[in-house]
Amino acid sequence: MPLVRIDISKTASRERVRDVGDAVYNAMIAVANVPNYDKFQVVTRHEPDEIIYPEEGYLGIDYTPDLIIIQVTWVGGRSTEVKKKFYQHIADEIHEIHAKQGVRKQDIWISLVDSGREDWSFGNGEMRYTPK
Amino acid sequence: MPLVRIDISKTASRERVRDVGDAVYNAMIAVANVPNYDKFQVVTRHEPDEIIYPEEGYLGIDYTPDLIIIQVTWVGGRSTEVKKKFYQHIADEIHEIHAKQGVRKQDIWISLVDSGREDWSFGNGEMRYTPK
Amino acid sequence: MPLVRIDISKTASRERVRDVGDAVYNAMIAVANVPNYDKFQVVTRHEPDEIIYPEEGYLGIDYTPDLIIIQVTWVGGRSTEVKKKFYQHIADEIHEIHAKQGVRKQDIWISLVDSGREDWSFGNGEMRYTPK
Repeated sequence: MPLVRIDISKTASRERVRDVGDAVYNAMIAVANVPNYDKFQVVTRHEPDEIIYPEEGYLGIDYTPDLIIIQVTWVGGRSTEVKKKFYQHIADEIHEIHAKQGVRKQDIWISLVDSGREDWSFGNGEMRYTPK
Repeated sequence: MPLVRIDISKTASRERVRDVGDAVYNAMIAVANVPNYDKFQVVTRHEPDEIIYPEEGYLGIDYTPDLIIIQVTWVGGRSTEVKKKFYQHIADEIHEIHAKQGVRKQDIWISLVDSGREDWSFGNGEMRYTPK
Repeated sequence: MPLVRIDISKTASRERVRDVGDAVYNAMIAVANVPNYDKFQVVTRHEPDEIIYPEEGYLGIDYTPDLIIIQVTWVGGRSTEVKKKFYQHIADEIHEIHAKQGVRKQDIWISLVDSGREDWSFGNGEMRYTPK
């Protein structure tokens, strides 16, 4: 059920885009109790002046034009501990795969939005889950 | 007040894009108590590798590159029953209009996000509703 | 922590895009208690038929193809009074800066989405805030 939005530079390779999506999906499976194959993602590519970040950095973290903005909408209820692991898993995997190409952990930015169980239709006009 | 985001293939015709937007709007009017003319939508077109879905399908539904992702942010409070009808109305209308062109019901994917009454400005810098 | 999405016409100048982003940021600092340098924004440009609004207008407000859709996801808890000031501040600043170029206050449309304190990673795979 999660819907993942990935906003990334136009200069990022197709491979990098795919790997970012895979890393988010893998983290969901590994630590956030998302079922296998529940992988729905929308990627939007941007010109340099369309992904805006503070040039001064923020709270000790500095950014580059390779900044990747990941926003996940999913059913609420996951614990703070799970969310912590989720962030770490994503950043670690992207960084490790692309260490040679230089994707920095600082450039992986994540926002989560909780919604309800009844807020999803995965096709056919059907509500997927009913409220507990 | 709803804000509708529609993410769709670059190969979709302008007509299809318009009809998807109309179907979402019509469903809002018909079943979700949205006022006439409250139609605000943002469409983003994508390359094939930018709308990502499980190639294995998910929970018995399989998808094609024509997958349309619809995300609606609106004021919370609608019942599960209304949301069920809303999904069905959208999928039915898109499918019926485009039956000949082959928009499959499986390729209509919907996510809802609730927000508050005070979370909207429709122009002029004015808050539209006040909290009840 | 706010994530700002700005959807705007392809015909808007780079200057206008930058000024819209700055106005949203400035309003956050001035009235919404957002820390300095907490400026993360994603701009997506659209063809005329990709930003859809009611041609009849809505609730006494009419729109043009220059309509700017601003959606802000941030940590919940801001008062109705703060949100009112926030809308006004944005519309006033954009309008004043671009008065000569004709950005109308009616064409500034804002939607807010609240999320939790634990829903943010600003880089390095770290959770930024912990729940209170």
